[in-house]
Amino acid sequence: MSPRIAVVLLSGGMDSATCLAIAKAEGFACYALSFRYGQRHAIELDAAARIAETLGAVEHRVVDIDLGAFGGSALTADLAVPKDRGEAAIGTGIPVTYVPARNTIFLSYALAWAEVVGAEDLFIGVNALDYSGYPDCRPEFIAAFQQTARLGTRITGLTIHTPLAELTKAGIAARGIGLGVDFGMTRTCYDPNDVGAACGRCDACVLRLKGFREIGVMDPAPYQEGVR
Amino acid sequence: MSPRIAVVLLSGGMDSATCLAIAKAEGFACYALSFRYGQRHAIELDAAARIAETLGAVEHRVVDIDLGAFGGSALTADLAVPKDRGEAAIGTGIPVTYVPARNTIFLSYALAWAEVVGAEDLFIGVNALDYSGYPDCRPEFIAAFQQTARLGTRITGLTIHTPLAELTKAGIAARGIGLGVDFGMTRTCYDPNDVGAACGRCDACVLRLKGFREIGVMDPAPYQEGVR
Repeated sequence: MSPRIAVVLLSGGMDSATCLAIAKAEGFACYALSFRYGQRHAIELDAAARIAETLGAVEHRVVDIDLGAFGGSALTADLAVPKDRGEAAIGTGIPVTYVPARNTIFLSYALAWAEVVGAEDLFIGVNALDYSGYPDCRPEFIAAFQQTARLGTRITGLTIHTPLAELTKAGIAARGIGLGVDFGMTRTCYDPNDVGAACGRCDACVLRLKGFREIGVMDPAPYQEGVR
Repeated sequence: MSPRIAVVLLSGGMDSATCLAIAKAEGFACYALSFRYGQRHAIELDAAARIAETLGAVEHRVVDIDLGAFGGSALTADLAVPKDRGEAAIGTGIPVTYVPARNTIFLSYALAWAEVVGAEDLFIGVNALDYSGYPDCRPEFIAAFQQTARLGTRITGLTIHTPLAELTKAGIAARGIGLGVDFGMTRTCYDPNDVGAACGRCDACVLRLKGFREIGVMDPAPYQEGVR
C-alpha cells in the first residue's frame, strides 16, 4: 500500500519544521511548500530547503507570491519590526507583523497542490501562542477553511492537521528534539542580520528563547552577540 | 460621506465586467483585481484593464500568481481545450478547464487587498451555469469562504456579493447591456487566436453565443471567421 500523501506548509521556522517531522512520523509522504512573498527574512527559505531535505520530504516547492504588492505589514512593507516589548505585551492585539490574509493565501495554494498530487491531508504549524495575536491561526479559522476547501475542490474528505495547536513553544521544542529536528537549521527571527544571525529581541525571538529556556536546552540557532 | 469600498474580481470576461458594473451602480468605489496565472489566454488581461478604466474603477491591479507551477488544468498546462461538445454536455462533471482551487486563491488575494484598502465587500461574478461544473462557484462554497474570511482577518463584517448567482448567460448579457457594459471589450474564449478572436467552439464561447442569441442581440466581441 502506498503511503498517504500530505502537503505540509514549511516556513523554515521551528514550528513548521516540527510540524513536518510529525507528519513524517505519522507515515505521510510529505510535499513541503514554502512561499517567497517579499518578506524581508528570505533567509528562512534556505532554511526551509535544508529542513525539507533533512526530514525526507518527497518534494519541496517554493511558490512566488505577490503579497508585498498590497503592503500593510511590517514583514512585507517598510515598517519597523517591534523589539524589546517584553513577554507580557506579546500576544495582545494584532501585531504589525500580521500579514493580511496570509494563512488564507498559504492554505489556498497548499490546497491547489494537494488537488494536483492527490493529497487529502494538509499540515500547518499554527500553535496556541499565535491565537491571540493572529486571527488566521485560530482553530475556528482552520475549521472554516477546511470546510471551504472541501466545498471548493474535488477533495471532499480533506483534513487540515494542526499538530502543534495545543503546544507551547517549550512543548514544540521538546517534541521536535524528540523527533530529531535539528533546530540549528531553523530560522524564526523577524529581523536577522546579513549572515542570518537572529536579533534575539523581536517577539518571535523572545518566545523562542523562552521556550528553549523552559526545557533547559540551549537553542542551537545562531544569534547576534550578547543577546542570548 | 465617502463611498463604501469594494474589491471586485475582474477577469476580462463578460461575467466579471457585468459584476463590476453592478458594484459601481450600487455606489461602491471599486478596486478591480485581476491575475496573471500562466493562463494561455492572457489577452483577457488587456481586456480587464480597458474594462476597469471604462467602468470607472478607482484602481486596477494585476497580481502574478504561480498556479502553472502545480499544473493540473487545461487552462494552465499543456492539455487540449475541448471543443464542439454540444450544449447538452456542458456542465456535466468537472471540466478539464477547472483550475485547482482557483477561486479559493483568487478570493484569498482579494481578501488581502480588502484588508489593506479598508473594504468590507468583495464581488465575484460566479453564476448559475458554473455551479454544476466548477465546485468553487457554488453558493455553499462562497458562504463558507465568507465565514473563513471573517474569522481569518480583521474584517469581521465581510460580505461576498455574487450578483450574477441566479442569472443565465442571457440574463447577464441583458443586465450588462442595461448598465452600459461594452461587451465588445470583454473576452471569454478559452482558446482565442493570435489577434484575440474567439474560437466560437469551446464551452465558454458556446454558452456566451447562446446567451446573446436568446436575447436577440449580436455579440459584439471578435470571433474567428465562420464560427458565429
